Amino acid sequence: MNNQQLFENIQKKGSFLCVGLDTDLTKIPGFLLGTTDPIFAFNKEIIDATADYAIAYKPNLAFYESEGLEGWRSLEKTVQYIRENFPDIFVIADAKRGDIGNTSSMYAKAFFEKMDFDAITVAPYMGEDSVKPFLAYEGKYVVLLALTSNKGASDFQFIASENSGEKLFESVLRTSQKWGNAENMMYVVGATKAEELAGIRNLVPAHFLLVPGVGAQGGSLQEVAKYGLNKQCGLLVNSSRAIIYASNGQDFAVKAAESAKETRDEMAELLKSNGLMR
Amino acid sequence: MNNQQLFENIQKKGSFLCVGLDTDLTKIPGFLLGTTDPIFAFNKEIIDATADYAIAYKPNLAFYESEGLEGWRSLEKTVQYIRENFPDIFVIADAKRGDIGNTSSMYAKAFFEKMDFDAITVAPYMGEDSVKPFLAYEGKYVVLLALTSNKGASDFQFIASENSGEKLFESVLRTSQKWGNAENMMYVVGATKAEELAGIRNLVPAHFLLVPGVGAQGGSLQEVAKYGLNKQCGLLVNSSRAIIYASNGQDFAVKAAESAKETRDEMAELLKSNGLMR
Repeated sequence: MNNQQLFENIQKKGSFLCVGLDTDLTKIPGFLLGTTDPIFAFNKEIIDATADYAIAYKPNLAFYESEGLEGWRSLEKTVQYIRENFPDIFVIADAKRGDIGNTSSMYAKAFFEKMDFDAITVAPYMGEDSVKPFLAYEGKYVVLLALTSNKGASDFQFIASENSGEKLFESVLRTSQKWGNAENMMYVVGATKAEELAGIRNLVPAHFLLVPGVGAQGGSLQEVAKYGLNKQCGLLVNSSRAIIYASNGQDFAVKAAESAKETRDEMAELLKSNGLMR
Repeated sequence: MNNQQLFENIQKKGSFLCVGLDTDLTKIPGFLLGTTDPIFAFNKEIIDATADYAIAYKPNLAFYESEGLEGWRSLEKTVQYIRENFPDIFVIADAKRGDIGNTSSMYAKAFFEKMDFDAITVAPYMGEDSVKPFLAYEGKYVVLLALTSNKGASDFQFIASENSGEKLFESVLRTSQKWGNAENMMYVVGATKAEELAGIRNLVPAHFLLVPGVGAQGGSLQEVAKYGLNKQCGLLVNSSRAIIYASNGQDFAVKAAESAKETRDEMAELLKSNGLMR
Protein backbone atom coordinates (compact mmCIF):
# COMPACT_ATOMS: atom_id res chain seq x y z
CA MET A 1 0.00 0.00 0.00
CA ASN A 2 1.07 3.64 -0.34
CA ASN A 3 -0.05 6.90 1.29
CA GLN A 4 -2.42 7.83 -1.52
CA GLN A 5 -4.20 4.45 -1.39
CA LEU A 6 -4.43 4.73 2.36
CA PHE A 7 -5.95 8.20 2.00
CA GLU A 8 -8.47 6.95 -0.57
CA ASN A 9 -9.53 4.17 1.82
CA ILE A 10 -9.89 6.77 4.55
CA GLN A 11 -12.11 8.90 2.32
CA LYS A 12 -14.17 5.89 1.22
CA LYS A 13 -14.89 4.78 4.78
CA GLY A 14 -14.89 8.20 6.42
CA SER A 15 -12.57 6.73 8.98
CA PHE A 16 -8.97 6.82 10.11
CA LEU A 17 -9.60 4.27 12.83
CA CYS A 18 -7.09 1.52 13.61
CA VAL A 19 -8.48 -1.23 15.81
CA GLY A 20 -5.92 -2.67 18.20
CA LEU A 21 -6.19 -6.42 18.54
CA ASP A 22 -4.86 -6.75 22.10
CA THR A 23 -6.61 -10.07 22.44
CA ASP A 24 -6.39 -11.37 25.99
CA LEU A 25 -7.86 -14.75 27.02
CA THR A 26 -8.77 -13.32 30.43
CA LYS A 27 -10.88 -10.57 28.83
CA ILE A 28 -12.68 -12.16 25.90
CA PRO A 29 -16.19 -13.58 26.40
CA GLY A 30 -16.03 -16.80 28.39
CA PHE A 31 -18.14 -18.80 25.95
CA LEU A 32 -15.35 -18.51 23.34
CA LEU A 33 -12.88 -20.32 25.55
CA GLY A 34 -14.42 -23.66 24.60
CA THR A 35 -13.67 -23.21 20.89
CA THR A 36 -10.51 -24.73 19.36
CA ASP A 37 -8.83 -21.35 18.81
CA PRO A 38 -10.48 -18.75 21.06
CA ILE A 39 -8.07 -15.94 20.11
CA PHE A 40 -8.71 -16.34 16.41
CA ALA A 41 -12.44 -16.88 16.95
CA PHE A 42 -12.59 -13.61 18.86
CA ASN A 43 -10.50 -11.71 16.31
CA LYS A 44 -12.56 -13.01 13.39
CA GLU A 45 -15.81 -11.83 14.99
CA ILE A 46 -14.33 -8.46 15.87
CA ILE A 47 -12.90 -7.98 12.38
CA ASP A 48 -16.13 -8.99 10.63
CA ALA A 49 -18.08 -6.60 12.85
CA THR A 50 -15.78 -3.58 12.57
CA ALA A 51 -14.18 -3.78 9.11
CA ASP A 52 -16.67 -1.30 7.66
CA TYR A 53 -15.55 1.31 10.16
CA ALA A 54 -11.81 0.66 10.38
CA ILE A 55 -9.03 1.15 7.90
CA ALA A 56 -6.37 -0.69 9.89
CA TYR A 57 -5.91 -3.45 12.45
CA LYS A 58 -3.01 -3.64 14.82
CA PRO A 59 -2.36 -6.97 16.54
CA ASN A 60 -0.24 -6.38 19.63
CA LEU A 61 2.40 -9.11 19.50
CA ALA A 62 2.81 -9.46 23.25
CA PHE A 63 -0.71 -10.79 23.62
CA TYR A 64 -0.03 -13.57 21.11
CA GLU A 65 3.46 -14.43 22.34
CA SER A 66 2.14 -14.80 25.87
CA GLU A 67 0.16 -17.82 24.66
CA GLY A 68 3.24 -19.41 23.10
CA LEU A 69 2.96 -21.55 20.00
CA GLU A 70 -0.85 -21.42 20.02
CA GLY A 71 -0.79 -17.65 20.20
CA TRP A 72 1.62 -17.41 17.30
CA ARG A 73 -0.66 -19.64 15.25
CA SER A 74 -3.68 -17.46 16.10
CA LEU A 75 -1.71 -14.41 14.97
CA GLU A 76 -0.77 -15.96 11.63
CA LYS A 77 -4.39 -16.98 11.05
CA THR A 78 -5.62 -13.49 11.93
CA VAL A 79 -3.31 -11.77 9.46
CA GLN A 80 -4.22 -14.27 6.75
CA TYR A 81 -7.92 -13.83 7.46
CA ILE A 82 -7.71 -10.07 7.03
CA ARG A 83 -5.64 -10.40 3.85
CA GLU A 84 -8.07 -12.83 2.25
CA ASN A 85 -11.29 -11.10 3.23
CA PHE A 86 -10.42 -7.43 3.52
CA PRO A 87 -7.62 -6.69 1.04
CA ASP A 88 -7.95 -2.90 1.55
CA ILE A 89 -7.20 -3.10 5.26
CA PHE A 90 -3.78 -1.95 6.48
CA VAL A 91 -2.28 -4.38 8.99
CA ILE A 92 0.27 -3.25 11.55
CA ALA A 93 2.39 -5.56 13.69
CA ASP A 94 2.67 -3.76 17.00
CA ALA A 95 5.93 -5.45 17.86
CA LYS A 96 8.30 -2.65 18.95
CA ARG A 97 11.24 -4.52 17.43
CA GLY A 98 14.70 -3.16 16.64
CA ASP A 99 18.16 -4.73 16.81
CA ILE A 100 21.52 -4.65 14.99
CA GLY A 101 21.26 -4.76 11.20
CA ASN A 102 21.47 -8.48 10.52
CA THR A 103 18.96 -9.18 13.29
CA SER A 104 16.52 -6.50 12.18
CA SER A 105 16.69 -8.12 8.72
CA MET A 106 15.40 -11.31 10.29
CA TYR A 107 12.57 -9.44 12.02
CA ALA A 108 11.69 -7.83 8.68
CA LYS A 109 11.57 -11.29 7.12
CA ALA A 110 9.33 -12.52 9.95
CA PHE A 111 6.76 -9.73 9.64
CA PHE A 112 6.90 -8.81 5.94
CA GLU A 113 7.61 -12.19 4.30
CA LYS A 114 6.62 -14.99 6.65
CA MET A 115 3.55 -12.98 7.63
CA ASP A 116 2.14 -10.36 5.30
CA PHE A 117 1.98 -7.30 7.55
CA ASP A 118 1.96 -3.86 5.92
CA ALA A 119 3.85 -2.23 8.76
CA ILE A 120 5.70 -2.89 11.99
CA THR A 121 6.34 -0.67 14.99
CA VAL A 122 10.07 -0.25 15.67
CA ALA A 123 11.95 1.22 18.65
CA PRO A 124 14.57 3.84 17.69
CA TYR A 125 17.13 3.39 20.48
CA MET A 126 19.66 1.43 18.39
CA GLY A 127 19.63 3.91 15.50
CA GLU A 128 19.85 3.74 11.73
CA ASP A 129 21.05 0.20 11.03
CA SER A 130 18.35 -1.19 13.34
CA VAL A 131 15.64 0.49 11.25
CA LYS A 132 16.94 0.35 7.68
CA PRO A 133 16.37 -3.36 6.96
CA PHE A 134 12.62 -2.81 7.39
CA LEU A 135 12.69 0.04 4.85
CA ALA A 136 13.97 -2.17 2.04
CA TYR A 137 10.50 -3.62 1.44
CA GLU A 138 8.50 -1.87 -1.29
CA GLY A 139 5.03 -0.88 -0.11
CA LYS A 140 5.78 -1.67 3.55
CA TYR A 141 6.22 0.76 6.44
CA VAL A 142 8.22 1.19 9.60
CA VAL A 143 6.18 2.88 12.32
CA LEU A 144 8.93 4.36 14.46
CA LEU A 145 8.35 5.18 18.12
CA ALA A 146 8.74 8.92 18.63
CA LEU A 147 6.58 10.11 21.52
CA THR A 148 4.74 7.35 23.33
CA SER A 149 1.54 7.68 25.36
CA ASN A 150 2.70 6.00 28.58
CA LYS A 151 3.93 7.53 31.79
CA GLY A 152 7.49 6.30 31.19
CA ALA A 153 7.65 8.45 28.05
CA SER A 154 8.87 11.25 30.31
CA ASP A 155 11.93 9.28 31.49
CA PHE A 156 14.01 9.73 28.33
CA GLN A 157 11.94 11.04 25.41
CA PHE A 158 11.92 14.64 26.69
CA ILE A 159 15.62 14.91 27.47
CA ALA A 160 16.88 17.99 25.61
CA SER A 161 20.22 17.89 23.81
CA GLU A 162 22.94 20.22 25.06
CA ASN A 163 23.96 20.88 21.45
CA SER A 164 20.63 21.61 19.82
CA GLY A 165 18.08 21.96 22.63
CA GLU A 166 16.11 19.35 20.73
CA LYS A 167 14.23 16.78 22.80
CA LEU A 168 15.03 13.13 22.19
CA PHE A 169 11.73 12.42 20.44
CA GLU A 170 12.37 15.42 18.19
CA SER A 171 15.84 14.08 17.37
CA VAL A 172 14.25 10.75 16.47
CA LEU A 173 11.79 12.51 14.14
CA ARG A 174 14.45 14.66 12.50
CA THR A 175 17.26 12.12 12.22
CA SER A 176 15.11 9.22 11.01
CA GLN A 177 13.87 11.23 8.04
CA LYS A 178 17.31 10.72 6.51
CA TRP A 179 16.74 6.95 6.59
CA GLY A 180 13.43 6.79 4.80
CA ASN A 181 10.56 8.96 3.63
CA ALA A 182 6.83 9.47 4.09
CA GLU A 183 6.14 6.47 1.86
CA ASN A 184 7.96 3.95 4.03
CA MET A 185 7.89 5.49 7.49
CA MET A 186 5.23 6.52 9.94
CA TYR A 187 5.61 7.59 13.57
CA VAL A 188 3.98 6.60 16.85
CA VAL A 189 2.81 9.75 18.61
CA GLY A 190 0.82 9.35 21.80
CA ALA A 191 -2.50 11.18 21.98
CA THR A 192 -2.08 12.05 25.62
CA LYS A 193 0.36 14.72 24.39
CA ALA A 194 -1.99 16.42 21.90
CA GLU A 195 -0.38 19.79 22.55
CA GLU A 196 2.91 18.35 21.23
CA LEU A 197 1.26 17.30 17.97
CA ALA A 198 1.48 20.73 16.38
CA GLY A 199 5.25 20.78 16.72
CA ILE A 200 5.53 17.20 15.55
CA ARG A 201 3.39 17.95 12.49
CA ASN A 202 5.81 20.76 11.69
CA LEU A 203 8.76 18.37 11.80
CA VAL A 204 7.07 15.65 9.74
CA PRO A 205 4.43 17.35 7.59
CA ALA A 206 3.84 14.49 5.15
CA HIS A 207 4.15 11.38 7.33
CA PHE A 208 1.28 9.36 8.69
CA LEU A 209 1.17 9.31 12.48
CA LEU A 210 -0.08 6.32 14.41
CA VAL A 211 -1.79 7.71 17.48
CA PRO A 212 -2.51 5.38 20.38
CA GLY A 213 -4.01 6.51 23.63
CA VAL A 214 -7.38 7.80 22.43
CA GLY A 215 -10.18 6.35 24.53
CA ALA A 216 -9.08 4.08 27.39
CA GLN A 217 -5.80 6.00 27.76
CA GLY A 218 -7.59 9.36 27.86
CA GLY A 219 -6.69 11.28 24.68
CA SER A 220 -9.20 13.40 22.75
CA LEU A 221 -9.96 12.72 19.10
CA GLN A 222 -10.89 16.36 18.48
CA GLU A 223 -7.53 17.54 19.79
CA VAL A 224 -5.62 14.95 17.80
CA ALA A 225 -7.40 15.96 14.58
CA LYS A 226 -6.91 19.65 15.28
CA TYR A 227 -3.14 19.36 15.54
CA GLY A 228 -2.44 16.23 13.54
CA LEU A 229 -4.40 16.20 10.27
CA ASN A 230 -2.51 16.89 7.05
CA LYS A 231 -3.74 17.03 3.47
CA GLN A 232 -3.81 13.23 3.15
CA CYS A 233 -5.36 12.93 6.61
CA GLY A 234 -2.00 11.66 7.87
CA LEU A 235 -3.47 10.06 10.97
CA LEU A 236 -4.23 6.53 12.05
CA VAL A 237 -5.90 6.73 15.43
CA ASN A 238 -5.79 3.50 17.37
CA SER A 239 -8.40 2.26 19.79
CA SER A 240 -8.10 -1.15 21.39
CA ARG A 241 -9.93 -1.85 24.63
CA ALA A 242 -12.77 0.65 24.10
CA ILE A 243 -13.79 -1.27 20.98
CA ILE A 244 -12.82 -4.91 21.37
CA TYR A 245 -13.93 -5.11 25.01
CA ALA A 246 -17.05 -2.95 24.65
CA SER A 247 -18.92 -5.98 25.97
CA ASN A 248 -17.83 -9.41 27.12
CA GLY A 249 -21.20 -11.05 26.61
CA GLN A 250 -22.78 -12.79 23.63
CA ASP A 251 -23.18 -9.34 22.07
CA PHE A 252 -19.46 -8.50 22.12
CA ALA A 253 -19.21 -8.19 18.33
CA VAL A 254 -22.35 -6.07 18.06
CA LYS A 255 -21.09 -3.76 20.78
CA ALA A 256 -17.66 -3.57 19.17
CA ALA A 257 -19.32 -2.57 15.90
CA GLU A 258 -21.36 0.11 17.69
CA SER A 259 -18.28 1.50 19.37
CA ALA A 260 -16.27 1.46 16.11
CA LYS A 261 -19.16 3.08 14.21
CA GLU A 262 -19.44 5.83 16.81
CA THR A 263 -15.74 6.62 16.41
CA ARG A 264 -16.04 6.41 12.63
CA ASP A 265 -18.95 8.88 12.66
CA GLU A 266 -16.93 11.33 14.69
CA MET A 267 -13.97 10.87 12.33
CA ALA A 268 -16.16 11.37 9.24
CA GLU A 269 -17.32 14.69 10.68
CA LEU A 270 -13.75 15.74 11.31
CA LEU A 271 -12.69 14.75 7.79
CA LYS A 272 -15.59 16.73 6.32
CA SER A 273 -15.10 19.81 8.45
CA ASN A 274 -11.44 19.81 7.42
CA GLY A 275 -12.25 19.52 3.73
CA LEU A 276 -10.76 16.03 3.43
CA MET A 277 -13.94 14.32 2.24
CA ARG A 278 -17.34 15.37 0.96
CA MET B 1 19.22 -17.71 39.66
CA ASN B 2 20.97 -14.89 41.53
CA ASN B 3 24.28 -13.07 41.08
CA GLN B 4 26.11 -15.23 43.60
CA GLN B 5 25.01 -18.47 41.91
CA LEU B 6 25.98 -17.05 38.57
CA PHE B 7 29.41 -16.14 39.96
CA GLU B 8 29.85 -19.64 41.41
CA ASN B 9 29.05 -21.15 38.02
CA ILE B 10 31.57 -18.79 36.45
CA GLN B 11 34.24 -19.90 38.93
CA LYS B 12 33.38 -23.58 38.46
CA LYS B 13 33.71 -23.42 34.68
CA GLY B 14 36.36 -20.72 34.48
CA SER B 15 34.14 -19.01 31.97
CA PHE B 16 31.88 -16.02 31.56
CA LEU B 17 30.98 -16.98 28.02
CA CYS B 18 27.45 -16.59 26.67
CA VAL B 19 26.86 -18.41 23.39
CA GLY B 20 24.46 -16.58 21.09
CA LEU B 21 22.08 -18.94 19.32
CA ASP B 22 21.51 -16.84 16.17
CA THR B 23 20.46 -19.95 14.31
CA ASP B 24 19.99 -19.26 10.63
CA LEU B 25 18.82 -21.95 8.19
CA THR B 26 21.00 -20.43 5.47
CA LYS B 27 24.13 -20.83 7.61
CA ILE B 28 23.79 -24.16 9.39
CA PRO B 29 25.30 -27.29 7.81
CA GLY B 30 23.27 -28.39 4.82
CA PHE B 31 22.95 -32.00 5.93
CA LEU B 32 20.80 -30.86 8.88
CA LEU B 33 18.15 -29.40 6.59
CA GLY B 34 16.73 -32.86 5.94
CA THR B 35 15.92 -33.46 9.62
CA THR B 36 12.43 -32.73 10.96
CA ASP B 37 13.51 -29.72 13.01
CA PRO B 38 16.85 -28.45 11.68
CA ILE B 39 17.00 -25.41 13.99
CA PHE B 40 16.55 -27.50 17.11
CA ALA B 41 18.84 -30.25 15.80
CA PHE B 42 21.57 -27.63 15.26
CA ASN B 43 21.01 -25.98 18.64
CA LYS B 44 21.06 -29.31 20.48
CA GLU B 45 24.41 -30.28 18.94
CA ILE B 46 25.87 -26.85 19.66
CA ILE B 47 24.64 -26.88 23.25
CA ASP B 48 25.89 -30.41 23.93
CA ALA B 49 29.28 -29.49 22.48
CA THR B 50 29.75 -26.17 24.26
CA ALA B 51 27.92 -26.46 27.61
CA ASP B 52 31.17 -27.26 29.46
CA TYR B 53 32.62 -23.94 28.35
CA ALA B 54 29.59 -21.64 28.52
CA ILE B 55 27.60 -20.33 31.43
CA ALA B 56 24.79 -18.84 29.34
CA TYR B 57 22.96 -19.23 26.04
CA LYS B 58 21.20 -16.41 24.29
CA PRO B 59 18.71 -17.33 21.57
CA ASN B 60 18.13 -14.32 19.33
CA LEU B 61 14.38 -14.18 18.85
CA ALA B 62 14.47 -12.68 15.36
CA PHE B 63 16.05 -15.81 13.95
CA TYR B 64 13.22 -17.97 15.29
CA GLU B 65 10.39 -15.59 14.42
CA SER B 66 11.63 -15.40 10.84
CA GLU B 67 10.69 -19.08 10.49
CA GLY B 68 7.19 -18.47 11.81
CA LEU B 69 5.39 -21.13 13.78
CA GLU B 70 8.12 -23.72 13.18
CA GLY B 71 10.74 -21.32 14.44
CA TRP B 72 8.77 -20.58 17.59
CA ARG B 73 8.45 -24.31 18.23
CA SER B 74 12.21 -24.77 17.78
CA LEU B 75 12.79 -21.98 20.29
CA GLU B 76 10.50 -23.52 22.91
CA LYS B 77 12.21 -26.90 22.46
CA THR B 78 15.64 -25.31 22.77
CA VAL B 79 14.84 -23.58 26.05
CA GLN B 80 13.27 -26.76 27.41
CA TYR B 81 16.28 -28.83 26.34
CA ILE B 82 18.68 -26.53 28.18
CA ARG B 83 16.50 -26.50 31.29
CA GLU B 84 16.22 -30.29 31.43
CA ASN B 85 19.83 -31.13 30.66
CA PHE B 86 21.85 -28.19 31.93
CA PRO B 87 20.02 -26.71 34.93
CA ASP B 88 22.97 -24.46 35.84
CA ILE B 89 22.93 -22.64 32.52
CA PHE B 90 21.55 -19.09 32.41
CA VAL B 91 19.21 -18.56 29.44
CA ILE B 92 18.65 -15.12 27.96
CA ALA B 93 15.90 -14.23 25.48
CA ASP B 94 17.52 -11.68 23.20
CA ALA B 95 14.19 -10.12 22.32
CA LYS B 96 14.69 -6.34 22.77
CA ARG B 97 11.09 -5.99 23.92
CA GLY B 98 9.50 -3.03 25.73
CA ASP B 99 6.02 -1.50 25.55
CA ILE B 100 3.45 0.20 27.79
CA GLY B 101 2.93 -1.49 31.15
CA ASN B 102 0.06 -3.85 30.41
CA THR B 103 1.79 -4.98 27.21
CA SER B 104 5.17 -5.49 28.84
CA SER B 105 3.36 -7.66 31.40
CA MET B 106 2.29 -9.90 28.55
CA TYR B 107 5.85 -10.09 27.22
CA ALA B 108 7.03 -10.99 30.71
CA LYS B 109 4.44 -13.77 30.81
CA ALA B 110 5.61 -15.01 27.39
CA PHE B 111 9.28 -15.23 28.32
CA PHE B 112 9.23 -15.98 32.06
CA GLU B 113 6.11 -18.15 32.39
CA LYS B 114 5.22 -19.64 29.02
CA MET B 115 8.93 -20.20 28.38
CA ASP B 116 11.35 -20.50 31.27
CA PHE B 117 13.97 -17.90 30.36
CA ASP B 118 16.13 -16.44 33.14
CA ALA B 119 16.41 -13.05 31.48
CA ILE B 120 15.21 -10.94 28.60
CA THR B 121 16.80 -8.01 26.80
CA VAL B 122 14.61 -4.88 26.95
CA ALA B 123 14.81 -1.55 25.11
CA PRO B 124 14.66 1.52 27.41
CA TYR B 125 13.02 4.10 25.12
CA MET B 126 9.55 3.87 26.71
CA GLY B 127 10.82 4.26 30.27
CA GLU B 128 9.93 2.89 33.67
CA ASP B 129 6.52 1.31 33.16
CA SER B 130 7.80 -0.54 30.09
CA VAL B 131 10.52 -2.22 32.18
CA LYS B 132 8.93 -2.73 35.60
CA PRO B 133 6.61 -5.66 34.74
CA PHE B 134 9.68 -7.78 33.96
CA LEU B 135 11.21 -6.97 37.35
CA ALA B 136 8.31 -8.48 39.29
CA TYR B 137 9.61 -12.02 38.72
CA GLU B 138 11.78 -13.39 41.54
CA GLY B 139 15.08 -14.76 40.25
CA LYS B 140 14.61 -13.34 36.75
CA TYR B 141 16.47 -10.47 35.11
CA VAL B 142 15.90 -7.60 32.72
CA VAL B 143 18.95 -6.97 30.55
CA LEU B 144 18.41 -3.34 29.63
CA LEU B 145 20.01 -1.87 26.50
CA ALA B 146 22.42 0.86 27.52
CA LEU B 147 25.25 1.17 24.98
CA THR B 148 24.88 -1.10 21.98
CA SER B 149 27.67 -2.37 19.73
CA ASN B 150 26.22 -1.37 16.36
CA LYS B 151 26.97 1.65 14.20
CA GLY B 152 23.53 3.15 14.88
CA ALA B 153 24.40 3.38 18.58
CA SER B 154 25.87 6.80 17.78
CA ASP B 155 22.58 8.19 16.47
CA PHE B 156 20.92 8.72 19.86
CA GLN B 157 22.80 6.96 22.67
CA PHE B 158 25.53 9.61 22.87
CA ILE B 159 23.27 12.67 22.87
CA ALA B 160 24.23 14.71 25.94
CA SER B 161 21.55 16.29 28.11
CA GLU B 162 21.51 20.09 28.32
CA ASN B 163 20.66 19.83 32.01
CA SER B 164 23.20 17.31 33.22
CA GLY B 165 25.68 16.83 30.37
CA GLU B 166 24.93 13.15 30.79
CA LYS B 167 24.78 11.06 27.62
CA LEU B 168 21.57 9.17 26.91
CA PHE B 169 23.08 5.76 27.69
CA GLU B 170 24.37 7.17 30.98
CA SER B 171 20.87 8.49 31.80
CA VAL B 172 19.52 5.01 31.09
CA LEU B 173 22.07 3.47 33.48
CA ARG B 174 21.46 6.02 36.22
CA THR B 175 17.68 6.34 35.98
CA SER B 176 16.95 2.62 35.62
CA GLN B 177 18.72 1.84 38.87
CA LYS B 178 15.72 3.36 40.65
CA TRP B 179 13.49 0.71 39.06
CA GLY B 180 15.41 -2.39 40.08
CA ASN B 181 18.72 -3.53 41.49
CA ALA B 182 21.74 -5.64 40.65
CA GLU B 183 19.77 -8.80 41.42
CA ASN B 184 17.09 -8.23 38.81
CA MET B 185 18.79 -6.03 36.21
CA MET B 186 21.77 -6.33 33.94
CA TYR B 187 22.85 -4.04 31.10
CA VAL B 188 23.83 -4.53 27.47
CA VAL B 189 27.13 -2.78 26.87
CA GLY B 190 28.76 -3.20 23.48
CA ALA B 191 32.36 -4.36 23.47
CA THR B 192 33.30 -2.16 20.56
CA LYS B 193 33.26 0.69 23.09
CA ALA B 194 35.66 -0.86 25.63
CA GLU B 195 37.02 2.55 26.59
CA GLU B 196 33.50 3.49 27.77
CA LEU B 197 33.36 0.45 30.07
CA ALA B 198 35.37 2.09 32.85
CA GLY B 199 32.83 4.90 33.18
CA ILE B 200 29.95 2.48 32.95
CA ARG B 201 31.46 0.27 35.66
CA ASN B 202 31.59 3.38 37.84
CA LEU B 203 27.88 4.03 37.33
CA VAL B 204 26.83 0.40 37.89
CA PRO B 205 29.50 -1.23 40.06
CA ALA B 206 27.50 -4.30 41.10
CA HIS B 207 25.48 -5.14 37.98
CA PHE B 208 26.28 -7.86 35.51
CA LEU B 209 26.95 -6.52 32.02
CA LEU B 210 26.04 -8.49 28.91
CA VAL B 211 28.71 -7.67 26.37
CA PRO B 212 28.06 -8.48 22.74
CA GLY B 213 30.41 -7.61 19.95
CA VAL B 214 33.46 -9.65 20.98
CA GLY B 215 34.73 -11.70 18.05
CA ALA B 216 32.86 -11.22 14.76
CA GLN B 217 31.97 -7.61 15.70
CA GLY B 218 35.57 -6.79 16.58
CA GLY B 219 35.75 -6.22 20.35
CA SER B 220 38.68 -7.40 22.49
CA LEU B 221 38.15 -9.74 25.44
CA GLN B 222 41.25 -8.41 27.22
CA GLU B 223 39.95 -4.85 27.04
CA VAL B 224 36.49 -5.84 28.19
CA ALA B 225 37.91 -7.68 31.19
CA LYS B 226 40.28 -4.84 32.05
CA TYR B 227 37.49 -2.28 32.32
CA GLY B 228 34.46 -4.44 33.07
CA LEU B 229 35.28 -7.08 35.71
CA ASN B 230 33.94 -6.56 39.21
CA LYS B 231 34.31 -8.69 42.34
CA GLN B 232 31.63 -11.17 41.17
CA CYS B 233 33.07 -11.12 37.63
CA GLY B 234 30.04 -9.06 36.57
CA LEU B 235 30.46 -9.89 32.90
CA LEU B 236 28.70 -12.15 30.46
CA VAL B 237 30.55 -11.91 27.18
CA ASN B 238 28.55 -13.07 24.22
CA SER B 239 29.89 -14.72 21.12
CA SER B 240 27.57 -15.99 18.43
CA ARG B 241 28.88 -16.47 14.90
CA ALA B 242 32.52 -17.14 15.86
CA ILE B 243 31.37 -20.19 17.80
CA ILE B 244 28.22 -21.58 16.23
CA TYR B 245 29.44 -21.11 12.66
CA ALA B 246 33.07 -22.11 13.28
CA SER B 247 32.45 -24.76 10.62
CA ASN B 248 29.49 -25.62 8.46
CA GLY B 249 30.60 -29.19 7.76
CA GLN B 250 30.01 -32.48 9.57
CA ASP B 251 32.44 -31.24 12.22
CA PHE B 252 30.43 -28.11 13.10
CA ALA B 253 29.85 -29.17 16.72
CA VAL B 254 33.48 -30.20 17.25
CA LYS B 255 34.67 -26.88 15.84
CA ALA B 256 32.14 -24.96 17.94
CA ALA B 257 33.47 -26.76 21.02
CA GLU B 258 37.06 -25.90 20.08
CA SER B 259 36.16 -22.25 19.58
CA ALA B 260 34.21 -22.11 22.86
CA LYS B 261 37.03 -23.87 24.72
CA GLU B 262 39.57 -21.42 23.36
CA THR B 263 37.48 -18.49 24.62
CA ARG B 264 36.92 -20.25 27.93
CA ASP B 265 40.68 -20.78 28.36
CA GLU B 266 41.32 -17.12 27.78
CA MET B 267 38.56 -16.22 30.23
CA ALA B 268 39.91 -18.61 32.87
CA GLU B 269 43.28 -16.89 32.63
CA LEU B 270 41.64 -13.50 33.05
CA LEU B 271 39.63 -14.69 36.05
CA LYS B 272 42.79 -16.08 37.67
CA SER B 273 44.95 -13.04 36.98
CA ASN B 274 42.24 -10.88 38.51
CA GLY B 275 41.97 -13.04 41.63
CA LEU B 276 38.45 -14.21 40.84
CA MET B 277 39.29 -17.93 40.75
CA ARG B 278 42.17 -20.13 41.75
